[in-house]
Amino acid sequence: MGLKTKEEYLESLRQMKPTAYMFGERITNVMDNPRLRAGIEATAATYELASMAEYRDLIVTQSPLINEPVNRFTLPPASVEDLVARVKVNRKLGNWVGTCHQRCTGLDCLSTLAIVTYDIDKKYETSYHNRFTEFLKYVQKNDLTGNAGVTDVKGDRSLAPHAQPDKDMYLRVVERRSDGIVVRGAKAHQTGSLSSHETIVLPTRALRKGDEDYAVAFAIPADTPGLIHVVGRSSLDTRELDGCDVGNVRYSKYCPTLIFNDVFVPMDRVFMCGEVEFAGEMVGRFSAFHRQSHGGCKSGKIDCMVGASLTLMDYNGTSKAGHLKQKVIDMIHRAETLYGCCLAASYEGKKEPSGTYFIDTVLANASKIHEGKELSETIRLMVDTCGGFVADLPSDRDLAHPEIGPLLKKYMKGVDGVAVEDRIKMFRLVEKMAMESADTISDIHGGGSPEAHRVTIFRESDIESKKRAARRLAGIVDGK
Amino acid sequence: MGLKTKEEYLESLRQMKPTAYMFGERITNVMDNPRLRAGIEATAATYELASMAEYRDLIVTQSPLINEPVNRFTLPPASVEDLVARVKVNRKLGNWVGTCHQRCTGLDCLSTLAIVTYDIDKKYETSYHNRFTEFLKYVQKNDLTGNAGVTDVKGDRSLAPHAQPDKDMYLRVVERRSDGIVVRGAKAHQTGSLSSHETIVLPTRALRKGDEDYAVAFAIPADTPGLIHVVGRSSLDTRELDGCDVGNVRYSKYCPTLIFNDVFVPMDRVFMCGEVEFAGEMVGRFSAFHRQSHGGCKSGKIDCMVGASLTLMDYNGTSKAGHLKQKVIDMIHRAETLYGCCLAASYEGKKEPSGTYFIDTVLANASKIHEGKELSETIRLMVDTCGGFVADLPSDRDLAHPEIGPLLKKYMKGVDGVAVEDRIKMFRLVEKMAMESADTISDIHGGGSPEAHRVTIFRESDIESKKRAARRLAGIVDGK
Amino acid sequence: MGLKTKEEYLESLRQMKPTAYMFGERITNVMDNPRLRAGIEATAATYELASMAEYRDLIVTQSPLINEPVNRFTLPPASVEDLVARVKVNRKLGNWVGTCHQRCTGLDCLSTLAIVTYDIDKKYETSYHNRFTEFLKYVQKNDLTGNAGVTDVKGDRSLAPHAQPDKDMYLRVVERRSDGIVVRGAKAHQTGSLSSHETIVLPTRALRKGDEDYAVAFAIPADTPGLIHVVGRSSLDTRELDGCDVGNVRYSKYCPTLIFNDVFVPMDRVFMCGEVEFAGEMVGRFSAFHRQSHGGCKSGKIDCMVGASLTLMDYNGTSKAGHLKQKVIDMIHRAETLYGCCLAASYEGKKEPSGTYFIDTVLANASKIHEGKELSETIRLMVDTCGGFVADLPSDRDLAHPEIGPLLKKYMKGVDGVAVEDRIKMFRLVEKMAMESADTISDIHGGGSPEAHRVTIFRESDIESKKRAARRLAGIVDGK
Amino acid sequence: MGLKTKEEYLESLRQMKPTAYMFGERITNVMDNPRLRAGIEATAATYELASMAEYRDLIVTQSPLINEPVNRFTLPPASVEDLVARVKVNRKLGNWVGTCHQRCTGLDCLSTLAIVTYDIDKKYETSYHNRFTEFLKYVQKNDLTGNAGVTDVKGDRSLAPHAQPDKDMYLRVVERRSDGIVVRGAKAHQTGSLSSHETIVLPTRALRKGDEDYAVAFAIPADTPGLIHVVGRSSLDTRELDGCDVGNVRYSKYCPTLIFNDVFVPMDRVFMCGEVEFAGEMVGRFSAFHRQSHGGCKSGKIDCMVGASLTLMDYNGTSKAGHLKQKVIDMIHRAETLYGCCLAASYEGKKEPSGTYFIDTVLANASKIHEGKELSETIRLMVDTCGGFVADLPSDRDLAHPEIGPLLKKYMKGVDGVAVEDRIKMFRLVEKMAMESADTISDIHGGGSPEAHRVTIFRESDIESKKRAARRLAGIVDGK
Repeated sequence: MGLKTKEEYLESLRQMKPTAYMFGERITNVMDNPRLRAGIEATAATYELASMAEYRDLIVTQSPLINEPVNRFTLPPASVEDLVARVKVNRKLGNWVGTCHQRCTGLDCLSTLAIVTYDIDKKYETSYHNRFTEFLKYVQKNDLTGNAGVTDVKGDRSLAPHAQPDKDMYLRVVERRSDGIVVRGAKAHQTGSLSSHETIVLPTRALRKGDEDYAVAFAIPADTPGLIHVVGRSSLDTRELDGCDVGNVRYSKYCPTLIFNDVFVPMDRVFMCGEVEFAGEMVGRFSAFHRQSHGGCKSGKIDCMVGASLTLMDYNGTSKAGHLKQKVIDMIHRAETLYGCCLAASYEGKKEPSGTYFIDTVLANASKIHEGKELSETIRLMVDTCGGFVADLPSDRDLAHPEIGPLLKKYMKGVDGVAVEDRIKMFRLVEKMAMESADTISDIHGGGSPEAHRVTIFRESDIESKKRAARRLAGIVDGK
Repeated sequence: MGLKTKEEYLESLRQMKPTAYMFGERITNVMDNPRLRAGIEATAATYELASMAEYRDLIVTQSPLINEPVNRFTLPPASVEDLVARVKVNRKLGNWVGTCHQRCTGLDCLSTLAIVTYDIDKKYETSYHNRFTEFLKYVQKNDLTGNAGVTDVKGDRSLAPHAQPDKDMYLRVVERRSDGIVVRGAKAHQTGSLSSHETIVLPTRALRKGDEDYAVAFAIPADTPGLIHVVGRSSLDTRELDGCDVGNVRYSKYCPTLIFNDVFVPMDRVFMCGEVEFAGEMVGRFSAFHRQSHGGCKSGKIDCMVGASLTLMDYNGTSKAGHLKQKVIDMIHRAETLYGCCLAASYEGKKEPSGTYFIDTVLANASKIHEGKELSETIRLMVDTCGGFVADLPSDRDLAHPEIGPLLKKYMKGVDGVAVEDRIKMFRLVEKMAMESADTISDIHGGGSPEAHRVTIFRESDIESKKRAARRLAGIVDGK
Repeated sequence: MGLKTKEEYLESLRQMKPTAYMFGERITNVMDNPRLRAGIEATAATYELASMAEYRDLIVTQSPLINEPVNRFTLPPASVEDLVARVKVNRKLGNWVGTCHQRCTGLDCLSTLAIVTYDIDKKYETSYHNRFTEFLKYVQKNDLTGNAGVTDVKGDRSLAPHAQPDKDMYLRVVERRSDGIVVRGAKAHQTGSLSSHETIVLPTRALRKGDEDYAVAFAIPADTPGLIHVVGRSSLDTRELDGCDVGNVRYSKYCPTLIFNDVFVPMDRVFMCGEVEFAGEMVGRFSAFHRQSHGGCKSGKIDCMVGASLTLMDYNGTSKAGHLKQKVIDMIHRAETLYGCCLAASYEGKKEPSGTYFIDTVLANASKIHEGKELSETIRLMVDTCGGFVADLPSDRDLAHPEIGPLLKKYMKGVDGVAVEDRIKMFRLVEKMAMESADTISDIHGGGSPEAHRVTIFRESDIESKKRAARRLAGIVDGK
Repeated sequence: MGLKTKEEYLESLRQMKPTAYMFGERITNVMDNPRLRAGIEATAATYELASMAEYRDLIVTQSPLINEPVNRFTLPPASVEDLVARVKVNRKLGNWVGTCHQRCTGLDCLSTLAIVTYDIDKKYETSYHNRFTEFLKYVQKNDLTGNAGVTDVKGDRSLAPHAQPDKDMYLRVVERRSDGIVVRGAKAHQTGSLSSHETIVLPTRALRKGDEDYAVAFAIPADTPGLIHVVGRSSLDTRELDGCDVGNVRYSKYCPTLIFNDVFVPMDRVFMCGEVEFAGEMVGRFSAFHRQSHGGCKSGKIDCMVGASLTLMDYNGTSKAGHLKQKVIDMIHRAETLYGCCLAASYEGKKEPSGTYFIDTVLANASKIHEGKELSETIRLMVDTCGGFVADLPSDRDLAHPEIGPLLKKYMKGVDGVAVEDRIKMFRLVEKMAMESADTISDIHGGGSPEAHRVTIFRESDIESKKRAARRLAGIVDGK
């Protein structure tokens, strides 16, 4: 028990026997599947950095709950400092892996449950908070990775859960037993579900009377019977399988759809069951935490993109072009905007009744709105600054071909003094960062749709005080 | 001879024996390679529509040169009407194939050569224009597709061609013989080079004294000895090879790097050789024509994206969401902006001394600047409106799996009354339009880099008249 | 009769006796009020250019109606060439006056009525078209300027006209007599109403049953009894009154609110009365024409802004700064976008049943959407490139002051060789173009609100064909 | 001594006898000039709020220097908490006055000098820091307002100060005496110079050898002989003079040009003199602090704009329009972005050797880049949401006119239940916030030009670490 090394993490995953499919085939050895492994390596980096002297202080802290050092990815924030550390850890990791490290969602669930289970108990005298705390201790003691099962598949989006023709389009309780519950449904976009020990489920939207079966939160091991991981396709997915032209030579990302085919959840793992009016709070807290997480890791990813642009400008002989430098500045500016708003959201965080700290949601959502709009622009700027080979670079297999390889190496050369292989590698990394769908689309849809972020900043802003300020300056007399 | 049917076009390609490589292997049967075939099909659509009653009038016109009906893709514009037709034909085709049809670049070369060979002859009493006219007749009579060999690999971009450490980084004449010339170099991003009968080469930049060897234009068959097509990787390239999850079930795009490994060009196919001061005009005309081409086809592609968004909104049950409709309007607006500026550039075209018509370059570049910036935004809007499954939709092979297939079909369902298969197909098409690199990156780099477009509108605008207008209104007295 | 010179135009206005107020005072001599005169001069430019050899061919054409040469501002377009000329005339004039010339709205009304009166007659066998044609002859023969009375004050915008607590919030017929009608209401933003001979009124929105009294169109002289022009304040309005620091030394703009205080309209000037279902067409046609007009004049105004920026960069010693040149290119790009989309809308125009030509509304609105968003950005770029003195330049009176004048002239100096007075004049012009509210706010609200333009392009686009294209490429089988 | 009330502040200003001109006339009674008074009132608000129970804790703190409570506007930040307070105080004040309160620049100078005088002394064993500390005590004890004399008039911007044809285009020392120095030059855009007790001068740019005379910093009373304040024109400046249609009924802004006509500065007020290599640090620190100040006050001003938009939507009957609400969200988002980045810049601040705290410059500049680009967009959105009357609302004098007043009040009415006068007042406030040049142009040029902010974030970012991160992921081997 205690902090896991990277190797221990990998070994612990290897012990699990999840039900997984990919491209129409059952995957029995998740760990050695090169596509999944590249994703697992990204999560493994959260363990690796925790054991590196340079980053240990950033990532490891003392848990007040178990009184032991823990990885911050198992720690619901207990102070403003903890909130701030979330952002800095995520920026470092985004920078380190150049894609999604996939461990933030579990923490965002833990942080949410640490707040909301307390609030439910307060109203209903339930014992969710105790149950959750026991689970949290177990997670901390074993340095586990969790995965957030939040986004339901949703069926007809104009209808409430209970009004769907097929009642299972939002995950729901189909049986209540004395020892637990049975749930059915499916969660989409389960980034890293096979890199996780635990799947933590929250509702995906606010619910109303009639939706009681859908108001459910719980945690189960990722290899629980009935839980089926179907890894979706993404745009460069065969590269890792082929072991060629991967771009990011270390890390990648994958996103399964997770089917809960009548899965049993023991009672001590049930953290909400039927309290519809808390579903909105649950998903709201989670989303806010998760949007804050994005602000960190995506600014770290932009750091890599900036580095790639500047490096290719060096390699191409264009590093003195003023217009390209302007574009790099536009990229940096976007990174710092995400980061700045998220940091501010953290520093302005407040203590909740449960003792867990919660961020300023307006500022966290301000960051996410930028991400949703500006990451694609940042990618465009990167592609612009690097040049057209992002589109159609010949394969490393072509470069290794005895006849055309030497010709390609001759013609792919950039400035003198830079190995043609390095230039090609950097183009390939840019292709990965620009065109890999699993990660780039999370810029838009991760943490809820862009519209959700917008609605949130309006709802959470103090609108009346703004109106009052305007009326005062206009000289409009009113009692308010 | 005369207009080819789609079948005749395919058969004519089958007769060619180009030297082609892909993923480290020699491709001897281009036509039956599913990845290349999907690209060839896109070009084939330019033949197919020409024989459909509905589109014939749009695409087929009488050639004043050979006095026969020809496909507009072999016709340098001889009137404003011809210029306008270019845009409308391209919009229709962009809409029809949902990607690049790959036949515009050849026409852009023909149109350029029709102007510049005349201009060179006028100065030097050379006979390029005659040679070119003979070639053009051959192209028209046989309804051939040409490919533009323009973009050199460029080596160190801060150095002129002749100043490169390796003199071959821009294609150049390495031997001048009485019967022709021998050329060496490589051209990047040769979209559709294997779908073409002829490769037409122009210089890629303005040249100065000292660069004479690089001032060369010519045309050779795509299977000329020494010409090597190395098909580059793009982001979804294995999908067509696997025959699964292709997205666009009919068409695709591929981009080889084309190596000219000491290729002989017979003299009657040489259209410029050494006249450095015309290189700038050559690439300038080509770029302007090509930017106009983009304005047509890319607005047609946006039409498909708009259609996909609206269809998925129907399928998802979100068609009444006001914020999504706003985003679709933003997409339409971008399509019409590209189209409007390009149409205007065409209507405002003027006759050149050779009799060929040339567009208004400021307006054509105004369109391209929008493309370079706004296509990626349009894609982002499409992804936003369609939902997150663009990132990670399970494979059709998973859907066909006896165990998990039925479960996936249950959970992938959208609104009642729409087949789950249709919803999945539409998501897959969106993935293709959003994440396929060969086509999306041409939005940015096709027709020259974004900066080139900007420099052009400044250089071609009447700056002095604008200053004069301001001085007059400010009351500044001056003689001008 | 016939074409008026500038002097004849001014004299003709001097003969009119409109009821006008400004800043709480009755204005009896409109012509000699320096604020109003600066606006009148802008309209006078439309007469002046018509008599200048350089521009006569652009502005004067033969009227098929009266078989005499007329100013294009009295000519409903009878051909594509006429539609295109509208854009080019407006760009020239926008460039010439650097603000709004105020004569387009009358033409937009004439063009609208030329179409819709015909359509109403066709349905109802009314005689509006004849009446209108007689009026049009009169306008053409006397080279009159008309003003568009379109925008009602609207009261509570969530309510239909007839549902307003005060029924007069949209102009309406309050009495029907055998010889004419009596109307009551008020029209806002009546740019140039005192520079016009005639006020032409159209409804401001689509109407339904119950709104019959509001479905009224007519024309009356601007000095008709009961018609009250109340000139609104705009941001630099006292500058012309003071005769100092005016910026644009020749032209300006003013916008009255026009009150129709039970005004009698003789029957031969009534062009619609009660045909509610045509109100939408009326305002729709007008808006489309007017949005096209904006695309011309505003691109001409941007030309002045570009000229001012480049001139001040010369004067400030910053003309070599790459980042400033980039911003100027951004300005030019916006001008050409407005212009390109409007030109295209014109070239793609079609003949209506009445014989008048109508533009492509999607493209015209595409232009206006850019104006509504991008003019303010263009102004920002101008201010950025010119420097901070736009904010707070000392007055010409300070510069003329015996003590501080010489000091100011010393310190306001830019580069050697440019008179300090010229630099100051150019800053003052920039202030006028950036900060004058009457003109800059028309960038946003002129021709209807930004949302109206967006709704229009969606409604007028062929949405079904776009969906069909997507379904075909996705491989979705359907009968359509 | 000690904290001044608003009344004491006003009285203290009344005692001063500055040399002031406006519109060509000498202003002897600054306090009772309504235009200047409106600006002075904005600064007075910084005193007023300090004495209001609700805001005292925000604005008043204990000075470690004089061990008394002081207004934060006299306190160089001595902790992260102080840095954060700067942003929050500024947001509150921006919200409270709806324009520039004009007191931040003095504090930004004090904060800068607190750092740089120490650094100079350390290198040269000068005694600037002591002198400055004495001055600071005096400022704190008397609760004085300072004004930043930073922006030189600059002459030919392509030339260094000493290379200008007229050596006085940057303020310089023209005489060095034993008791002090004599300076000559002019500073532009001296917001609030007549609302201040002290003028604090810093160099405006980095300097090199040869520019020693220009490397000067000092403080002198605003009514020092030879110091001439020439109040510049701004767009609505006559409104306050006329006492009508002012919009913001309480506050305004004015910006003089400040001429130093051979002004004597006693030695104890000289804080730098000749140390050219510190000029860059001086202006860099000041700019960073000032950009942080903007992030606070401008987000507060946006709060007023949001309030005005929402109020007018209520008054116009458009509060349910989804597209308008989206625009308001865009406005809020911009406020929170400025605020978030500035807060983060503050929380991430670090202690300098002198003990004063300094912000994170990358984040502060990230905020300012947004301001420079997005404030004008926010204004555009406000105008869009409020409606066209911002352009041309009739004057209050028209509304008071016996004949047309009642008519205007009838027609200017919005929804039932809202007084027409209130609707008019709110439109007038919007006009003020949108079209007043002194304040809106500071959004662009305040704190240095937009390009300066961009160059800063590039220079201050850790570029090498970003390149390294990319190389590592691309698999490029290097020693770093």
